[in-house]
Amino acid sequence: MAGTDRQRPLITGGPAVILVEPQLGENIGMVARAMANFGLSELRLVQPRDGWPNPKARAAASKADHVIDGTAVFDTLEAAIADLNFVFATTARARDGFKPVRGPQSAAQSLRARMESGQQCGVLFGRERWGLSNEEISLADEIVTYPVNPAFASLNIAQAVLLMSYEWMQSGLAPSSETPFSGPRVQPATKSDLQGFSDQLEEALQARGYFRPPAKKPKMVDGLRAVLSRPGFSKTEIQLLRGVIRSLDRFSRKSPRGSGPPDPVEDDEQSAPVAGGSEP
Amino acid sequence: MAGTDRQRPLITGGPAVILVEPQLGENIGMVARAMANFGLSELRLVQPRDGWPNPKARAAASKADHVIDGTAVFDTLEAAIADLNFVFATTARARDGFKPVRGPQSAAQSLRARMESGQQCGVLFGRERWGLSNEEISLADEIVTYPVNPAFASLNIAQAVLLMSYEWMQSGLAPSSETPFSGPRVQPATKSDLQGFSDQLEEALQARGYFRPPAKKPKMVDGLRAVLSRPGFSKTEIQLLRGVIRSLDRFSRKSPRGSGPPDPVEDDEQSAPVAGGSEP
Repeated sequence: MAGTDRQRPLITGGPAVILVEPQLGENIGMVARAMANFGLSELRLVQPRDGWPNPKARAAASKADHVIDGTAVFDTLEAAIADLNFVFATTARARDGFKPVRGPQSAAQSLRARMESGQQCGVLFGRERWGLSNEEISLADEIVTYPVNPAFASLNIAQAVLLMSYEWMQSGLAPSSETPFSGPRVQPATKSDLQGFSDQLEEALQARGYFRPPAKKPKMVDGLRAVLSRPGFSKTEIQLLRGVIRSLDRFSRKSPRGSGPPDPVEDDEQSAPVAGGSEP
Repeated sequence: MAGTDRQRPLITGGPAVILVEPQLGENIGMVARAMANFGLSELRLVQPRDGWPNPKARAAASKADHVIDGTAVFDTLEAAIADLNFVFATTARARDGFKPVRGPQSAAQSLRARMESGQQCGVLFGRERWGLSNEEISLADEIVTYPVNPAFASLNIAQAVLLMSYEWMQSGLAPSSETPFSGPRVQPATKSDLQGFSDQLEEALQARGYFRPPAKKPKMVDGLRAVLSRPGFSKTEIQLLRGVIRSLDRFSRKSPRGSGPPDPVEDDEQSAPVAGGSEP
């Protein structure tokens, strides 16, 4: 998906992402890209198999150069987290133990609150094949696990980082913007706009004998109005629809349809249809 | 991350994921894997560049064979969504227009509520390079956009699908009381019902020279479709509206209006209008 705007300020900061013994440069690059997508920028590597810097990582990062350039490499996990106040370990399954387990959303909210209070935080991600060892997990404060399909639980490392990064970004959005937005931002037309449209349509239908039998007309009109009023059409939409009805009502087909019942009348010059949306 | 347990039941179902003109088989496979991770299983492809089946897709799916095996291929987007009641389009940025815009979390909650009420739903994802066209977006009911870093907004297609799939899974975990749903009380028509109505109206307008100048027609058609798709008309409502348009299209006024431009044609017996709502 495109849409990057290089004029906008780059969002950086957030918790450190710590990859323990990552193997493929491509994965490291995709992790950097996922972090950049959601405003994280601090990447730390513990003993990357293929060394560092790694051209494959840069290529896969799709221009998340600020993350790649700032990546720090450590010999041990202990060293990589030495300056941090709080660390999450990510695991595929909750393990036995005394550590609290959270989902990514709750974990991100916790990280946000901690960092706002001045703590330095990080999130550990394990090797591609088998994740983190129990000893590594024991160095963390709490565990993050993902609500995956138990029968198909294998997330790759870039996806696991993507989800945490996404929840980090979400956690910083104002509550109002998290509120589900139900309904269009369009300003509904006034009732008189709507009534004018409804009157126009009813008159055009009445002139064609649409309301039959006549005794049923009131009920049919009610039904039509209910359909037209439910959507909360905007003034612009009403204008467009009035133009449509006007064209159908005033002008005939320019050439006969194969199966059309009445012969259409050829329009003459002065009755040329008005282009759509021209109804005042 | 490991942790898959093949003894656990596989979670399937959820909204259909529809990829429009995907190019790389690897991406299709990674989409299938991301879906399987979070319990989605119905994948639809519109004109995949390299055909289908695609061995690269299966390899990249990392054993999400149930998704790959069930993948359906369509010639047009219209056909791919014909049986659906509600469709989201994913875009990198909110676009101008009448359609409501949601984040993935709110969108997933909305999808969950709709599917629980019996609606068939889907989510559209665009091409790797440039996403969805405006015309394709016009076929959707609402838009999903991601809370990305504006200066680094480029999500790849598998990541975009992963985030929606993750939020789909999350939406099923959240306490129902936390899930505000202000959805429509009526069951929306299927896209093919709506497309039929839209086609009927466009044809009737085309026959009258409504789309002027011709170069503007595609934009005018998009606008018309946007207005018609926004309300989430029900099947019954669409039937009523088709009856209305049919009456306006096929039959002329029975008596001249004071100011009407073209002379109306008197209907003869066999062309008597059909009462409202009779369109099959």
